[in-house]
Amino acid sequence: MRIDIITVVPDLLKSPFEASILKRAIEKNLVEIHLHNLRDYTTSSYKQIDDYQYGGGAGMVMMIEPIDKCISKLKSKRSYDEIIYLTPDGNVLNQSMANSLSLKGNLIMLCGHYKGVDQRVRDLFVTKEISIGDYVLSGGELAAAVLCDSIIRLIPGVLGNETSALTDAFQDNLLSPPIYTRPSNYKGHMIPDVLLSGHQKKIDNWRDDKALQRTKDRRPDLLEE
Amino acid sequence: MRIDIITVVPDLLKSPFEASILKRAIEKNLVEIHLHNLRDYTTSSYKQIDDYQYGGGAGMVMMIEPIDKCISKLKSKRSYDEIIYLTPDGNVLNQSMANSLSLKGNLIMLCGHYKGVDQRVRDLFVTKEISIGDYVLSGGELAAAVLCDSIIRLIPGVLGNETSALTDAFQDNLLSPPIYTRPSNYKGHMIPDVLLSGHQKKIDNWRDDKALQRTKDRRPDLLEE
Repeated sequence: MRIDIITVVPDLLKSPFEASILKRAIEKNLVEIHLHNLRDYTTSSYKQIDDYQYGGGAGMVMMIEPIDKCISKLKSKRSYDEIIYLTPDGNVLNQSMANSLSLKGNLIMLCGHYKGVDQRVRDLFVTKEISIGDYVLSGGELAAAVLCDSIIRLIPGVLGNETSALTDAFQDNLLSPPIYTRPSNYKGHMIPDVLLSGHQKKIDNWRDDKALQRTKDRRPDLLEE
Repeated sequence: MRIDIITVVPDLLKSPFEASILKRAIEKNLVEIHLHNLRDYTTSSYKQIDDYQYGGGAGMVMMIEPIDKCISKLKSKRSYDEIIYLTPDGNVLNQSMANSLSLKGNLIMLCGHYKGVDQRVRDLFVTKEISIGDYVLSGGELAAAVLCDSIIRLIPGVLGNETSALTDAFQDNLLSPPIYTRPSNYKGHMIPDVLLSGHQKKIDNWRDDKALQRTKDRRPDLLEE
């Protein structure tokens, strides 16, 4: 998989791809991440990428021309499965969207900043608009990092233990049951007896019950789907 | 505001706080961010912070003792408004939660990794469990960065233009209307005439209509609340 990220603050995105699981996926050649600084695609001498909005109002708007240039250059070199714009009014990301994007080959992610991009960018170039949740961020960069993480960890070979992603929360529309590790007694706080019983069937039943109960308590909406 | 972030991969979190709006907020002394490496709080000589889960199953679980030590040290120095655990089964973050957290003084954010933390950490120390969305990440670090960004940009003085945050998507349960900037004609793609009319009342009405229409089309659920 190849992901091209278009941004005005590429520095913001450095460390998430230089640590932990994303770093390992890149080192294993399971994914390539390319950061593109939108300011490299301006024609103005002072590298302007935004301007005031027509009709007045607070906040700057990202101009169409540098974005067009950057996307056109990328598309001239290879074909892309999706050109994704990260925006709070996009389709809200969920696990099944992450699953399906993890099967793609080439993706472009466009990070908004300030008030967002000129609407014509969305009308002409973008094939998918994604929001990571119902809140506003100072830019699309962290949203792109989150989207990359949610996708890349699902690529076979990225996680050490492949069953690990399969037992994740949401993969079966249930939240995870409580989990415990050593010590079994921490300052008098004990783990549930069943987990020490050695009866795998009892343990599995206990986990199923707890997962269902937690989902009912916290996220009954997941059970209605 | 002071935010203490507890993590096993502090390196992952460096660049988001060294760029753009979060950097500026820190430089203006509007917020302090302290990263704590959980491995500094282990007692074992090989800095173990995780172990297998009781009852079997894939994925490692973060142990209670290093977390207890780190949180206890922080709490011995100052009081905290919330100890937040970032987890996919927490309360799903939305703009009103971000608004309310932006008014707090001291926050601890605990990042899960692997399969998450020992349940006793959640039972004994955590006061609030937050999810940034219905998808799984390789760790809580990006979720913490997203939560920080959503909160910090709301602190007065962080954004250049204070009205900017007030006209954000979600602040009035509506998505934003389309926005446009120069040029008005880009390769034959024109902006809507009304935005060039100079009639502020007409422009405001057009924006209200478009915001409502976009919300009806994309997120009718927001209008039901």
